[in-house]
Amino acid sequence: MLTFVGLGLYDEKDVTLKGLEAIRDADVVYAEFYTAPLGGKTVERMEMAYGKRISVLERGDIEENAEETILKLAKNQKVVLLSGGDAMIATTHVDLRLRAIDMAIDTRIIHAPSISSAVAGLCGLQSYKFGKSATVAPPYKGLISEVPYDTVMANKERGLHTLLYLDISMRIKDALKLLEAVEGKRNGKVLKESVIVGIARAGSDMPVVKADYLGALKSYEFGELPHVIVVPGDLHFLEKEALVKIAQAPASI
Amino acid sequence: MLTFVGLGLYDEKDVTLKGLEAIRDADVVYAEFYTAPLGGKTVERMEMAYGKRISVLERGDIEENAEETILKLAKNQKVVLLSGGDAMIATTHVDLRLRAIDMAIDTRIIHAPSISSAVAGLCGLQSYKFGKSATVAPPYKGLISEVPYDTVMANKERGLHTLLYLDISMRIKDALKLLEAVEGKRNGKVLKESVIVGIARAGSDMPVVKADYLGALKSYEFGELPHVIVVPGDLHFLEKEALVKIAQAPASI
Repeated sequence: MLTFVGLGLYDEKDVTLKGLEAIRDADVVYAEFYTAPLGGKTVERMEMAYGKRISVLERGDIEENAEETILKLAKNQKVVLLSGGDAMIATTHVDLRLRAIDMAIDTRIIHAPSISSAVAGLCGLQSYKFGKSATVAPPYKGLISEVPYDTVMANKERGLHTLLYLDISMRIKDALKLLEAVEGKRNGKVLKESVIVGIARAGSDMPVVKADYLGALKSYEFGELPHVIVVPGDLHFLEKEALVKIAQAPASI
Repeated sequence: MLTFVGLGLYDEKDVTLKGLEAIRDADVVYAEFYTAPLGGKTVERMEMAYGKRISVLERGDIEENAEETILKLAKNQKVVLLSGGDAMIATTHVDLRLRAIDMAIDTRIIHAPSISSAVAGLCGLQSYKFGKSATVAPPYKGLISEVPYDTVMANKERGLHTLLYLDISMRIKDALKLLEAVEGKRNGKVLKESVIVGIARAGSDMPVVKADYLGALKSYEFGELPHVIVVPGDLHFLEKEALVKIAQAPASI
C-alpha cells in the first residue's frame, strides 16, 4: 500500500489527523521536498511531532529508481510518501501513482490544505473566479518565460483572478520584475495599472497579505519564503472591501 | 479573537493538527453546515474527537445576528467557527471576517483540505489547467441556470478543465441531466461527446472517481453524497493515462 500524505501549507501542524494516523500506522515513511517548499518545518520537528523516522528522497529516487525502492517496498508494506501542500498536486506524484497501479499496489491519497485553495480566503477573493494558474520561474539561459504574463492577460480578459506560483526559491519582487519586463517588451500597461496581491507564508501564524500597484509592491518587504502572487481580475464590491481591509490595498481601487 | 477553522473534506479526522489545537484552546466553538455538506461527520463525533462542546449556527445567526452573538463574544473571548472544506471559501465567511475587522476583532484562518484542490489529484488531472468553476443548482421556478454550461464551454475553448460544484444535496446524475438540457436547447454536442468525471465522497477512505461519456455516466451509481463533477478540457497524455487507470475512463479517449 502506497499512501500519499499531504503536509499542508507551512509547518508540521498542517497535516490532518487522518494524515497523522496514516504516518503512525506506516511501516516506512518517506518525504520529498523538491516539489514544494519546506516552509516552517524541518524533518527533525516532523519526526518529533509524528513519532516516526522519516527518510527524505531526492528527485531521482522518485522519478527514476522508484521501482527498486519505494514501489518495491510498497508491494508488501505500508509505505507513506509525505509532500508539501495537497498530496497530489505535482505531476511527479500522479506519475508515481500510475506506476504503483501498474504494479498492482493499492494507493490512497490523504489530502491537506493547498495554497491553490487557501489564497482565495487569505485575500478575500471569490474562489470560483480564479482562472488558469501559472508558475513564474527564473530566466532560463537569459530567456524570460512569457507564459505567466499571457495567463494573467487571458484571465483578465474574462474578468478572472490569477494565482501565480513562484519557483521554490523565488521572491515576490523578483517575480514582479520578470512580469514587468514581459509587459515592457509588449508595450503593455495592463499589469502596471493593476492592483496585485503578494502573499508570504500562507498557513503560518503570521502570513503577510499585501495588495498594491505593481510599482509599490515591488519594494514591499514580504520576509521569509514561501511567496505567491495573485493578480485579481474584475472585482466585486465585497472583494474590493476585502482587499482594502485585509490586504491594505489603496482605498482608490 | 475569531478563528476560522476548516474541517476539510469528509469526516472529523480531516481537520489539521493546528485546527485541533485552536479548537481545544477556544473558549467557545461554533460550527455551521449550510455552506458545505457534513459528509461523513456528525456533531457528536466531532465533539468526542475534539473533546469540546460545539454549538451549530444557522444561516441567520451568521448573516444577520452575528454582531449580537458570535462577534460580541469574540471581542473578549477566543471564538472558533468551524466549517467544511477550507475555512474561508464561502462568501459569507469573508463577509463575517470583514465585520469582525470593523469591530477591531483579531481574526485568523486555519486552512484545511478543500475540494477545489483535491479534485485534480483524485482524477490525476493537472491542477494549473483548471479554469473558472461554477455551481450546478436545482432549477429555480422551473428555470435552469445556464451559467455552469457556459463556464464549461468557455473553459473548453481554452483547453481548460472545469470543476462543477453541486448544490449541497444534489447528485451527479441530476446535475448531468440539467447540463444536458441546456446543451439540448442550444443544439450543441460538445458535452455529449466529452468524457466527464464524477467524484463522490472525496477525502473519505472510499472515494469514487469514475470517468465516462455523459450518456453512460448518468446511470452510474455513485452512492452517498457529497458529489462533484469535473469536465476535462484538452488532455495531456499523462492525464489520459490517469483517467483510464484511476477513473476507468474508456480506453478510446
